[in-house]
Amino acid sequence: MEPIRIDDPADPRVAAFLDIRERDLAGRQGRFVAEGKVVLDVLLTGSRFEAESVLILENRLAGLAGILEKAPPALPVYVVSAAVMDRIAGFPMHRGILAIGRKGQEIPAADLLAALPERALVLVLVGIANHDNIGAIFRNAAAFGADAVFLDPTCCDPLYRKAIRVSVGAALKVPFAVIPDVGAFTGLLAESGFDNFALSPRGNLDIRQARHGGRVALYLGTEGEGLPESLLRHMRTLRIAMAGGFDSLNVAAASAVALHHFFDGSD
Amino acid sequence: MEPIRIDDPADPRVAAFLDIRERDLAGRQGRFVAEGKVVLDVLLTGSRFEAESVLILENRLAGLAGILEKAPPALPVYVVSAAVMDRIAGFPMHRGILAIGRKGQEIPAADLLAALPERALVLVLVGIANHDNIGAIFRNAAAFGADAVFLDPTCCDPLYRKAIRVSVGAALKVPFAVIPDVGAFTGLLAESGFDNFALSPRGNLDIRQARHGGRVALYLGTEGEGLPESLLRHMRTLRIAMAGGFDSLNVAAASAVALHHFFDGSD
Repeated sequence: MEPIRIDDPADPRVAAFLDIRERDLAGRQGRFVAEGKVVLDVLLTGSRFEAESVLILENRLAGLAGILEKAPPALPVYVVSAAVMDRIAGFPMHRGILAIGRKGQEIPAADLLAALPERALVLVLVGIANHDNIGAIFRNAAAFGADAVFLDPTCCDPLYRKAIRVSVGAALKVPFAVIPDVGAFTGLLAESGFDNFALSPRGNLDIRQARHGGRVALYLGTEGEGLPESLLRHMRTLRIAMAGGFDSLNVAAASAVALHHFFDGSD
Repeated sequence: MEPIRIDDPADPRVAAFLDIRERDLAGRQGRFVAEGKVVLDVLLTGSRFEAESVLILENRLAGLAGILEKAPPALPVYVVSAAVMDRIAGFPMHRGILAIGRKGQEIPAADLLAALPERALVLVLVGIANHDNIGAIFRNAAAFGADAVFLDPTCCDPLYRKAIRVSVGAALKVPFAVIPDVGAFTGLLAESGFDNFALSPRGNLDIRQARHGGRVALYLGTEGEGLPESLLRHMRTLRIAMAGGFDSLNVAAASAVALHHFFDGSD
């Protein structure tokens, strides 16, 4: 890996890094942006995705030697001054570490389901549209060894820049798939031997009493509306015991408590 | 409560709301800013602190009637147009709901300790300098009925605007105090019958095995460095079992798991 110096922000080799924030909204045609040292490390070593190129602030290069040496030799690593970095990114990029990855083919949910091990813990997310929450949930999913995350079409993209950053790269590791119809998928999970458990402030069973082991699918909805009643009717509902008189937990915090309960690590 | 119309951003009655973001950094002489509907509700009904004045976007006023009627009759409620709101706040204030509260006298840590009930769960935070994390930890503390939060001097202020917002108002409810010397305070907690438990990725005991009930003090440090060894030596250390090969949990997620374990709600 020989770093390539770039002095012109309009150099076509760094076109994929242009206007990071605007492109977050407009989309990137099958690419995503990874930022920061830890996420770059995950992308280059523990990721399901392929890196396409890396853009580094010149003064960060030395500190990344250990990470960059794990990259495929053909991966272009571009090095720029702070002024060029900011002009490419379109805002002050203090971290100074960016990479473009390729999303590749989406995994069909049925294929991901078919590939799960005999003992498995999966999340099913419904309406989680906040990138911080998606990122934090993926981080918790990785920490507690979840095998897959299924997202309904109203969830936001886990490969959005901020979601990847908040996940500390977990969004690049934990396999996920979008399910077009969560109701139908619930049936498929049940047929595949999964216990469907929905987390709900009005759940019937204290989560501490829920059976773990085997195959568990844990459903999480938005903080405000929660999971739709039509879904709750078809599964066991779990509550996290809380002090009276206070607003419910943040959904990412709830995911940590629930995943920890179902996590089967023999430690 | 009769709303007072303000048309001049320089009106001295709304001076406390000027340049919200800059004042976040410079400080506000014993005041804090609460923003958003839920936080305003907490401030006016469930808070340890006194509200000084409220500033509302005209089109939000009707939706707040139920909350504002709980306010003391003498509390000034100022109403402004969007243009005046943005000029006062110094940036586009889409939420359109702001309030100033008074910090009042800080509670000395020893007084807060002395006032705790016989069964008590408290947090001791060391080096938590990120406002999102402080806010999320307070939200979890309220959800799981923690009786108090003690902060070492390197933690950030829970009454910082963003911390209050992320806490959904919990920073205004859960009593807290700053401890000048965490080592000395650890001794004081032990003398007061508290079990000192430190969360640490290298903890000796799986948290699921830790005794709960009675008086429990739970110590949380930063994600990177964790709690100082000098502190860990003097207490039992707890780990949260996690899948191998992944970065540790976010400190707020860890607080949710640990508080849920120690939460004593008979539900």
